[in-house]
Amino acid sequence: MAQAVFYHAGCPVCVTAEQLLADSLAISVEKVHLGEQPARIAEAEAAGVKSVPAVVINGQALHINHGADIEALK
Amino acid sequence: MAQAVFYHAGCPVCVTAEQLLADSLAISVEKVHLGEQPARIAEAEAAGVKSVPAVVINGQALHINHGADIEALK
Repeated sequence: MAQAVFYHAGCPVCVTAEQLLADSLAISVEKVHLGEQPARIAEAEAAGVKSVPAVVINGQALHINHGADIEALK
Repeated sequence: MAQAVFYHAGCPVCVTAEQLLADSLAISVEKVHLGEQPARIAEAEAAGVKSVPAVVINGQALHINHGADIEALK
């Protein structure tokens, strides 16, 4: 199981966060495109994700800048 | 020179971001407490930092959740 889950939607803000931050992590990162995997939106919301890009580490949601509200992905 | 600069103000949101994200980076991170080093607020703002906690990588500001507006630290 990955130590971090990076949720995104392929947006420009998401790509920047992925390249600069998610890809710089020393821990294992699973990347989930919520636009392509809408079945995982509920899981992201349960972890507290309200917008993308966001990374969940140790069950805590860390929103990175603001690309899109998760509501807009439903 | 550090590859990333993590700006914070010692707030609870800042501490969470530091422990979960900043300390998980594989790149070198300089940590700057803007409440204790107000002289560096201008540098943070020039990099686009509008609130803390935030990390600047490759000259780009990535805000992590929201602890305090940088204006509140002046």
